[in-house]
Amino acid sequence: MKDFASQNENYELRVRESFSKQNLMKTIGASLTRVLPGEVDILLKFRHDLTQQHGFIHAGVVAALADSACGYAALSLMPPDAAVLTVEYKINLLSPALGESLLACGKVTKPGRTLTVCSGDVFALKDGEKKLVATMIATMMSVRGKEGMID
Amino acid sequence: MKDFASQNENYELRVRESFSKQNLMKTIGASLTRVLPGEVDILLKFRHDLTQQHGFIHAGVVAALADSACGYAALSLMPPDAAVLTVEYKINLLSPALGESLLACGKVTKPGRTLTVCSGDVFALKDGEKKLVATMIATMMSVRGKEGMID
Amino acid sequence: MKDFASQNENYELRVRESFSKQNLMKTIGASLTRVLPGEVDILLKFRHDLTQQHGFIHAGVVAALADSACGYAALSLMPPDAAVLTVEYKINLLSPALGESLLACGKVTKPGRTLTVCSGDVFALKDGEKKLVATMIATMMSVRGKEGMID
Amino acid sequence: MKDFASQNENYELRVRESFSKQNLMKTIGASLTRVLPGEVDILLKFRHDLTQQHGFIHAGVVAALADSACGYAALSLMPPDAAVLTVEYKINLLSPALGESLLACGKVTKPGRTLTVCSGDVFALKDGEKKLVATMIATMMSVRGKEGMID
Repeated sequence: MKDFASQNENYELRVRESFSKQNLMKTIGASLTRVLPGEVDILLKFRHDLTQQHGFIHAGVVAALADSACGYAALSLMPPDAAVLTVEYKINLLSPALGESLLACGKVTKPGRTLTVCSGDVFALKDGEKKLVATMIATMMSVRGKEGMID
Repeated sequence: MKDFASQNENYELRVRESFSKQNLMKTIGASLTRVLPGEVDILLKFRHDLTQQHGFIHAGVVAALADSACGYAALSLMPPDAAVLTVEYKINLLSPALGESLLACGKVTKPGRTLTVCSGDVFALKDGEKKLVATMIATMMSVRGKEGMID
Repeated sequence: MKDFASQNENYELRVRESFSKQNLMKTIGASLTRVLPGEVDILLKFRHDLTQQHGFIHAGVVAALADSACGYAALSLMPPDAAVLTVEYKINLLSPALGESLLACGKVTKPGRTLTVCSGDVFALKDGEKKLVATMIATMMSVRGKEGMID
Repeated sequence: MKDFASQNENYELRVRESFSKQNLMKTIGASLTRVLPGEVDILLKFRHDLTQQHGFIHAGVVAALADSACGYAALSLMPPDAAVLTVEYKINLLSPALGESLLACGKVTKPGRTLTVCSGDVFALKDGEKKLVATMIATMMSVRGKEGMID
């Protein structure tokens, strides 16, 4: 994995401010942990109100975490006037999302002026162990000059 | 689109019971509307606590709706003793998820004994108009004989 | 499926000229059949030198047909000075690619200034029957002002 | 990346024999280089008859290499009586596939009795440099007891 340079020296502040505006992340209780240039982690404590019919965390929540981690990994490299939008992603669910918490790690694979491609891995944490439960490839888009979209 | 025959005469009851156990669907306020063999719709009223940083419904919620609609479309065709799990999906977000409500339509493309492939479309409903905001291909797996997984 | 209007009145000529420059399509013996605004079909006669280890047409060839059909469906709507590039695609292989020929149908789902999202279906043709063997979602990008890339 | 143990002590012979039956790989001139448990590399020399309209190697060929590398990475871990089929994959094309040759590296992310999830990266090699041109997630299926499918 290469190291990337951000085009925004205040990249961490920017990512944290944008994350704090994501109401869904508040609703599900997710928090932003690590923020590096091109690399962002999001943590979620297990909650019963986020499960599917077998008691695992719903794939939609797993995907929302990975998608947000990827989106903010992309945003962390963008210039201050750019907003980030998810174009598309693909996720494979590898194991039941069970445990004390979920950790989603988003990393930039290839940054670009318009499109940035990221990979996301989601781990279930339990008893100090880390198990890969999902893996994602996501395409993010840098959008400029759209009123109301500055993060 | 072909018509499919279910292997479970009580397919609708089964899908509705399973859906009622998806805590996430309760948490976000989604409801199951149409249930046909191989075709399931899910409706969500717009809520501010489900948005991302630009005020649109978060991609994770859009995906959760489409994923659940696809999963239940697959389950509707399965024999009574099978449970359904999402193997993977890919979603393209085509337009901002804004409007009075979102309607996710899941359809079986190809049923199978082990794997069932589905397509999902999510529409934003506003002022009587219907706009496509996301499109998905999903792979679902039929699981049998795993304790605690019967839907 | 909506009808789309092309931004290039000579869209068919443009698509056919570009296709004729795709050496791979010549190499595998594929031909462009239907070209409409936002909708393009490609046909391939079955050939033993294109198979995988079980004697089916290799997934890579199936994908190349669907990808090209989607790319040209996107290009057919673009202005004359734009070139098209595949950003990404996802394909599900539903049935063995066996038969007299394969027909790939690419359709625009959502056109855009920068990105165009398409769906592609590949059918195996045999004894007058048509069987769906693969389904794709693809994201295409319109590129302008890059020397040497005008189709 | 974890190390995986094969369920077939002759995994390398098996993979090489199966690869030699892939007519498409012969047709495009691809060769199998590294074969380890859960990890397979395929090499392709640049050829003008495999290009798309801008002179890059066609995305379909790039995908065929990555798909085959992933499929054989999965097969290398399977028991002797299992055959491998591609269920689906998603590929992002990151940079033009230009150079002296392409190297596709397939790795198992998560092996399973029925489904094995793999990641594939394709690099362009030129002047001793290695550039990532595509990245894939693929789902492979283990098939048993189907006549004529033993690899």
